[in-house]
Amino acid sequence: MNVTLSATLAANEDIARRRRAGERILNLAFGEAGLPVHPALRERLEAASRENAYGPVAGDASLREAAAGYWERRGLPTDPGLVVCGPGSKPLLYALLLAIGGDIVLPMPSWVSYAAQAGLAGVHPIMVPAPPGEGGTPDPEQVEAAVLAARARGRAVRSVLVTLPDNPTGRLAKPRTVRRLAEVARELDLVIISDEIYRDLVHDPGAAFLSPAAVAPERTVVTSGLSKSLALGGWRIGVARVPSRPLRDAVLAVASEIWSSPAAPVQRAAAYAYTEPPELVERVAASRRLHGVVAREVAGRFSRAGAIVAEPQGGFYLYPDFTPLQRFGTSAELSAALLDRHGIGVLPGTAFGDRPGNPCVRVATSLLYGEGEERRLATLESREPLRMPWVAASLGHLDDALAALTEKGRPDAWITPALAPVTP
Amino acid sequence: MNVTLSATLAANEDIARRRRAGERILNLAFGEAGLPVHPALRERLEAASRENAYGPVAGDASLREAAAGYWERRGLPTDPGLVVCGPGSKPLLYALLLAIGGDIVLPMPSWVSYAAQAGLAGVHPIMVPAPPGEGGTPDPEQVEAAVLAARARGRAVRSVLVTLPDNPTGRLAKPRTVRRLAEVARELDLVIISDEIYRDLVHDPGAAFLSPAAVAPERTVVTSGLSKSLALGGWRIGVARVPSRPLRDAVLAVASEIWSSPAAPVQRAAAYAYTEPPELVERVAASRRLHGVVAREVAGRFSRAGAIVAEPQGGFYLYPDFTPLQRFGTSAELSAALLDRHGIGVLPGTAFGDRPGNPCVRVATSLLYGEGEERRLATLESREPLRMPWVAASLGHLDDALAALTEKGRPDAWITPALAPVTP
Repeated sequence: MNVTLSATLAANEDIARRRRAGERILNLAFGEAGLPVHPALRERLEAASRENAYGPVAGDASLREAAAGYWERRGLPTDPGLVVCGPGSKPLLYALLLAIGGDIVLPMPSWVSYAAQAGLAGVHPIMVPAPPGEGGTPDPEQVEAAVLAARARGRAVRSVLVTLPDNPTGRLAKPRTVRRLAEVARELDLVIISDEIYRDLVHDPGAAFLSPAAVAPERTVVTSGLSKSLALGGWRIGVARVPSRPLRDAVLAVASEIWSSPAAPVQRAAAYAYTEPPELVERVAASRRLHGVVAREVAGRFSRAGAIVAEPQGGFYLYPDFTPLQRFGTSAELSAALLDRHGIGVLPGTAFGDRPGNPCVRVATSLLYGEGEERRLATLESREPLRMPWVAASLGHLDDALAALTEKGRPDAWITPALAPVTP
Repeated sequence: MNVTLSATLAANEDIARRRRAGERILNLAFGEAGLPVHPALRERLEAASRENAYGPVAGDASLREAAAGYWERRGLPTDPGLVVCGPGSKPLLYALLLAIGGDIVLPMPSWVSYAAQAGLAGVHPIMVPAPPGEGGTPDPEQVEAAVLAARARGRAVRSVLVTLPDNPTGRLAKPRTVRRLAEVARELDLVIISDEIYRDLVHDPGAAFLSPAAVAPERTVVTSGLSKSLALGGWRIGVARVPSRPLRDAVLAVASEIWSSPAAPVQRAAAYAYTEPPELVERVAASRRLHGVVAREVAGRFSRAGAIVAEPQGGFYLYPDFTPLQRFGTSAELSAALLDRHGIGVLPGTAFGDRPGNPCVRVATSLLYGEGEERRLATLESREPLRMPWVAASLGHLDDALAALTEKGRPDAWITPALAPVTP
């Protein structure tokens, strides 16, 4: 089997190992939200500690109804009978691949697990770049050409995926691009899978957000979850909104044979979260502001170091391109230099399906908020999060690394001075 | 895709629907343990409500160490580095199928999801009956013949599965059968997957239990979980003990792309459970006694009604064979009659891969303990659980159904008198 550990999870485990061995590493590789659980959610989980029934495969009715309400408030009327819950949106995406079958068009670059899941499911990912300046959506005209070409070669292509807003680029597809993609999907009879797990973390609440489910409701699946907006990654809860009963049934068939149902106490807390009570709406808003401030700040530092960086519009990622430095031939070389010489963990563009020769890395900024609940909460509540001492110190480490990385001279000069190994 | 909702989960949801519509149904179809969460586990989950990190794909170190200790106490020295945790043993079994690759030999009959998972993974299940009087292990001599025949046809066969003790038959394979199977597996270079999720529920604590991991440690994977012994089905936690680093890495690669990690708060509670503190050892012992008493009682009733029933030795299942009645041509006919005419939900043998013409059904006895935590706990703590009013009433319903089912005369006479629909 030709699959390795998910690139983000592997990077995170590698960084933890290096830290235990005494290396000083700044973890900008892992897409964990880096914030504490809101007390209201803790209370709901604790109150549900008696819940031990498997429950329905699709998820408890209260959770499906709450998720339907969540989508309705975003202009997508939703039948709770067409909501499927899973232990994260990742397993839901995998079940969708198996249920839909056929090859899938993915944006290039795109989240590490889409293509890997396609490999596990035995289908081909067809990588198509986004339109210039955008991210998370494959260019509609190129999609059309790629699908027709694949079909001419005898391949069954059945779906296309978008990530709104995007991981790794942090960019939000323009409504006109989404509309055009929906037209192409309709012409080619493709299911659109719209991964909107970062939707509530679009930095500008007034930004024009268009879900393909609004323009092609008959063929769009929306996936989401609470891992990012409410920092519940480790609780494993995701939701999908499917367009038809047959697709729902096929997803449930897969779900029932692979995971049965999400953890029952977590479902109860998630049902509460999806009703969007004021204290959680405020928490999501505060998180969004923090992610935006820090992601833009870090983007500015990469930009000043000479990289090309599109301003992040959502989530906590950026995707700097080091081509102007003319120093790194591949993204793997670049990420290895950042980690081994400068103690900065990031992921190479190749992990996201990008061309090896594009010297791009994905930078996740959400683990800059500090270690431990107390510091993270203080950062979240601060009016000047960049001035929190632990945030400032990490940004200083990053500055040193970028200065050394971009300094002219012998390779040895690149090593960040602050990086003498620390005894554990 | 040719997969339907897992037979047990589908039956459970169908019964819930019928009950909501006013039908009086006794649910003997669903393999849920039917007992409450122990307060010590609730406390651990509640204390872990702050845990929201994804954590390692293999599971937290404390959980892996505790699980290793659990196996060590059962005579299987275990490296925590070779333990992989998942959200249930079901996803672990699926990951193993993908990681090992190739066709798999399964006992016939065997748990509904093994063959279905093989279908999802694109491999063939080779169904081989158990030796006469046994269950859960394919007959070793027939395994050899079947594997050689499949290989002669060009199939790659890479694994064989055993369930100790068994679902659906409730039988425990004899040590000499396990030994012989291990020899055959070694000769044929097969991985043995030993599903031991019911191991702690073998009714007679003095029964001779042999895990293939004790005799073929180099090629045996053991899977287990807390869904049955501690009734944590809805919490979704399972563990696997793999024999080698390459297989571990392959399983982790799959896990990292499908589910990331089990829910963090659940992992904390599970880590406590696997240390086997006295109050949980006592809870498992009480559960084992209750399951044994009730399963044997129900087996006696099916037997007196004329079915052939091997005495259940573990878990909460029996597998009566209605051939002597000469009334049902197929297991599907039999289970449909039990549900539609007599309000008894069971699963047909075909759901377990048995031949359609074998009029066998799987009867799960664990939902006889009553509805709600209070009744279930009272049943668990009772010295005469069969006399608890709700248990006695359900057994009365079963008696009426079996009497009507086996009564000579017109089909109409079979309808159980007590089954006039109840207004909801």
